[in-house]
Amino acid sequence: MKKRTHNCGELRKEAAGNQVVLAGWIDSVRDHGGVLFVDLRDREGLTQVVVHPGNQTIDEALAHFKTESVLEVEGEVVLREPETINPRMKTGEIEVSATSVELLNRSKTPPFPMDDEKADKVNEDLRLRFRYMDLRRPRNLEVLRLRHRATQAVRQYLDEVGFLEIETPSLFKSTPEGAREFLVPSRLNPNEYYALVQSPQQYKQMLMVAGVEKYFQIARCFRDEDLRADRQPEFTQIDLEMSFIDREDMYALVEGLMKRVWKDAVGVDVPTPFPRLSYDEVMNRFGSDKPDTRFDMEITDFSDTFAESGFKVFAGTIANGGVVKAINAKGLADLTQGELKGLEEAARSLGAKGLAFIKAEKGEWKSPILKFLSEEEQQALRERLNVEDGDVVFFAAGEWESACTILGRVRLDSAKLLEKRGKITRDPADYRFLWVIEFPLMLFDEEAGRYTAAHHPFTSPVPEDLELLDSDPKAVRGQHYDLVLNGVELGGGSIRIHQPDLQKKVFEDVLGLPKDVVQERFGYMLEAFSYGAPPHGGIAFGLDRLTAILANRPSIRDVIAFPKTQKGQDLMASSPSPVSEKQLRDLFIRNVEPVRDDENS
Amino acid sequence: MKKRTHNCGELRKEAAGNQVVLAGWIDSVRDHGGVLFVDLRDREGLTQVVVHPGNQTIDEALAHFKTESVLEVEGEVVLREPETINPRMKTGEIEVSATSVELLNRSKTPPFPMDDEKADKVNEDLRLRFRYMDLRRPRNLEVLRLRHRATQAVRQYLDEVGFLEIETPSLFKSTPEGAREFLVPSRLNPNEYYALVQSPQQYKQMLMVAGVEKYFQIARCFRDEDLRADRQPEFTQIDLEMSFIDREDMYALVEGLMKRVWKDAVGVDVPTPFPRLSYDEVMNRFGSDKPDTRFDMEITDFSDTFAESGFKVFAGTIANGGVVKAINAKGLADLTQGELKGLEEAARSLGAKGLAFIKAEKGEWKSPILKFLSEEEQQALRERLNVEDGDVVFFAAGEWESACTILGRVRLDSAKLLEKRGKITRDPADYRFLWVIEFPLMLFDEEAGRYTAAHHPFTSPVPEDLELLDSDPKAVRGQHYDLVLNGVELGGGSIRIHQPDLQKKVFEDVLGLPKDVVQERFGYMLEAFSYGAPPHGGIAFGLDRLTAILANRPSIRDVIAFPKTQKGQDLMASSPSPVSEKQLRDLFIRNVEPVRDDENS
Repeated sequence: MKKRTHNCGELRKEAAGNQVVLAGWIDSVRDHGGVLFVDLRDREGLTQVVVHPGNQTIDEALAHFKTESVLEVEGEVVLREPETINPRMKTGEIEVSATSVELLNRSKTPPFPMDDEKADKVNEDLRLRFRYMDLRRPRNLEVLRLRHRATQAVRQYLDEVGFLEIETPSLFKSTPEGAREFLVPSRLNPNEYYALVQSPQQYKQMLMVAGVEKYFQIARCFRDEDLRADRQPEFTQIDLEMSFIDREDMYALVEGLMKRVWKDAVGVDVPTPFPRLSYDEVMNRFGSDKPDTRFDMEITDFSDTFAESGFKVFAGTIANGGVVKAINAKGLADLTQGELKGLEEAARSLGAKGLAFIKAEKGEWKSPILKFLSEEEQQALRERLNVEDGDVVFFAAGEWESACTILGRVRLDSAKLLEKRGKITRDPADYRFLWVIEFPLMLFDEEAGRYTAAHHPFTSPVPEDLELLDSDPKAVRGQHYDLVLNGVELGGGSIRIHQPDLQKKVFEDVLGLPKDVVQERFGYMLEAFSYGAPPHGGIAFGLDRLTAILANRPSIRDVIAFPKTQKGQDLMASSPSPVSEKQLRDLFIRNVEPVRDDENS
Repeated sequence: MKKRTHNCGELRKEAAGNQVVLAGWIDSVRDHGGVLFVDLRDREGLTQVVVHPGNQTIDEALAHFKTESVLEVEGEVVLREPETINPRMKTGEIEVSATSVELLNRSKTPPFPMDDEKADKVNEDLRLRFRYMDLRRPRNLEVLRLRHRATQAVRQYLDEVGFLEIETPSLFKSTPEGAREFLVPSRLNPNEYYALVQSPQQYKQMLMVAGVEKYFQIARCFRDEDLRADRQPEFTQIDLEMSFIDREDMYALVEGLMKRVWKDAVGVDVPTPFPRLSYDEVMNRFGSDKPDTRFDMEITDFSDTFAESGFKVFAGTIANGGVVKAINAKGLADLTQGELKGLEEAARSLGAKGLAFIKAEKGEWKSPILKFLSEEEQQALRERLNVEDGDVVFFAAGEWESACTILGRVRLDSAKLLEKRGKITRDPADYRFLWVIEFPLMLFDEEAGRYTAAHHPFTSPVPEDLELLDSDPKAVRGQHYDLVLNGVELGGGSIRIHQPDLQKKVFEDVLGLPKDVVQERFGYMLEAFSYGAPPHGGIAFGLDRLTAILANRPSIRDVIAFPKTQKGQDLMASSPSPVSEKQLRDLFIRNVEPVRDDENS
């Protein structure tokens, strides 16, 4: 093997006359009048190489030069004739006239076509089985490069502002409720199990107690649950925690971080500060706690309008404490029966009984419910929703959160339909960051008859609401914050409770966990807090999701080097991995023996 | 909470007169004439704060200000009186005269004394249980900072030379031989198991086939085996792989990397290039493949001298193809009976039948074997080992590798004894990097009657030795390289096989693996290589070990934020984690049902 002097993306006309050595893969090969023109590809680009077949016939040479084989070429850089200059190629002004060529490795015929247009249509499982071929496509390799740039940016920024990257264990304590945990038996302790961490939450809080003050980690996390389209059993989190801060410090830090990542990874200057919207506001306006604000179509409340309506569905809902809300899907009056049905089904899937609508077409309003609406009610709709010919109005009536959520979904689905018609655009490069804040701290679980933490039990209440903890837990807002971008929750976090008494009160009095459960699961934490825990807070971001947005890829599988298929397999774990009877015996059976097998008794 | 204006390590006399806000932990508190002097500590240092007790009595105030409690102080920076300036403190010229003080959190009495001298003597399990307190000691926090700096240096350097950091899966395929693997059952695929990766070796080779060319990762790896003193179930590896390179490229890369890490982490300029010693040479000279070259005491071969010796043990060994070697432990003639016994036992533990020695004391040589040695033999020893009064010569006779290893151990143990006597020093800051190269590719496993890979089966043979693969596999050297520092193997790697035919030959013909086993375990790899794998090679370093050396700490547990105890527990996993019967049932029993339980049948 000779020493490469250049990569395949860097030679320019100034290099003409130089002797060079290139190495890479044969991207394509063509026979032009008995001479071979090879496009040689490496990580950095393509260079055209001209090979004279020498003693071989051209057919022999062609057979030798199969695409995706690995070639090393020594030769002279030559200016191309003006008419053969390729302006679409970075190296298009030159070619390399080979003086020696060595085939470093042969390739069989690729299992699928390597050009993007065709490869994108290939079954994903086949592409994952041959992931090493799929990653050779420059577009896919570029995603890995982007991910690298993004994580480097995160690390450099956080280092500059004083964060220490600290590794925390993956082998964590198993918790009885951890239904989604991967359990890991160990030879060391029969009848005990580790669990793979779902997040470093508790470890990072311990690091604050330890006085680290500014911690971060790009941490692998694990979740054993069905793999939906966009879920992997292992995923990566940008995780950080700081001491002696309040929410303002966190907003400023994260805005700086995002600015840096977007700048370094995709060269975009993101404006800061990000807007802050309360949970109530985003639900009222967008029907979602992760609103896509690249388009309007905001939700309007008509509860006042319909309180006394002749349309009993609306009036009755309001009388029962519910709300009536509507959106105007501008220009969607031409929606098909099938599309309408799709919207209805989406609404029903969220608990709606149906999807009331009004179409404004050819100067007329058409709707099954029109006959129930008074002139004043219609006037109110027309004015407040700016209803014009070609629009459709959709309604939701019900309990506040449910009505908001339904219209939030209809809003998104309508946007898709309008986008198909070219009537709105949601530019993936239009980055609309925003904070959602002032979430409720607790939710009431009707079924269990008790409160549960809206995010997690370590979130600190908003100080003004502290006294409501006893009297009206549901009204207490938490110091939680979500960072949202274009309809995606990029990350979330909170200021934590650092006072052992308050944390205990939340566990026992508010969440109603039995004392022994609190002691067993969180005793070490309460103990740690009693040795001088500083005020602290943190946030975590899904790196896979963040990279997918940066790369403008629809699936997180596109931004992971070796994603697992829906069956949890990857290239290396592509065939089943049965363990030997001996292994089972050594590990599992010894461990489970104390458990009776009721099915056989 | 007020906004911190400064940390506790940065105020200097120039700040006198400024109003500041500090926050941190009470390191100590003293009553001086009714005024409290608090040393406030944060991550960056200590600042003396002067507090007037106000309305409280001094005793009340003192009770309030327990050490390790969290305090926020607002006050004015004041120059200290000249006689109270503390030159050992970075902030020793000033103090902060508090105008307001808020106790942010109380601390109970720490579970062990926090000053280094006392804390170091505390039982390690107790320190691990209260790891958050142990980490508050500035010396321990500094180790985490050092580790952060080292990993940042790795990342920056590798980024600068074109490497991409790419994450590979932790959930790998389980292999039948993987005796040390953690097995992970998954809800997704009953009767199948993942294994936690022991290293990303195969994934990174796939990335080379994918055309990534330069990959690295700071990767978590897992091994389920007994935790000895310096072994953790999870550990971290600096892992890298490159394409189109030979060994020279790798040496240059790694030398640059180490230079950068040592510079950034501890400010030391490491000279490069590193010496390269063949496996034969390090074994012959130092009796170890990871020699500590900070001291001499090299091994000398006396097989020629003793081939015809009257001492039949030596002559017989040589006649049987063995060797006789010796070292001179200079100045160790005063070793005690107990020390001698210790050396003998060490030698015996490596297969020696005993440990022959000669002491040179008071102008005389003393040794049980002296009477068997001719004058010429004694003369040869004296000259070639430079034996002087006060020295001890130790011998090993046996098969080459075994004799080397025994004397290698005696050499190290003697060095410890000499160090205790102040006769040699092994300065931890004297960094003697070296490469060990030209290892044998294969070892012959006498018991199994077949060859095994000395490192792993992907290592490429040295090209000149390729033809010996069939005729004399044992003589084939591999393109493997170890990076050694002061007696520790920092890392190791190799140029890999990239030709599918050669890889198959190694698996099947040389290692004698059955075809179906090769197909099942490595089929995907052979397949991948047949699609144009580039020449490639890599290396991996143990980050924990590397950091321990940088920090001059004896144990890797000192450089891990949350190390596990010998029982595999840590702060969070400190109590057993029994899983519920239901969980066992859902996960394991369903999975193991097909297996008969022979003990009950």
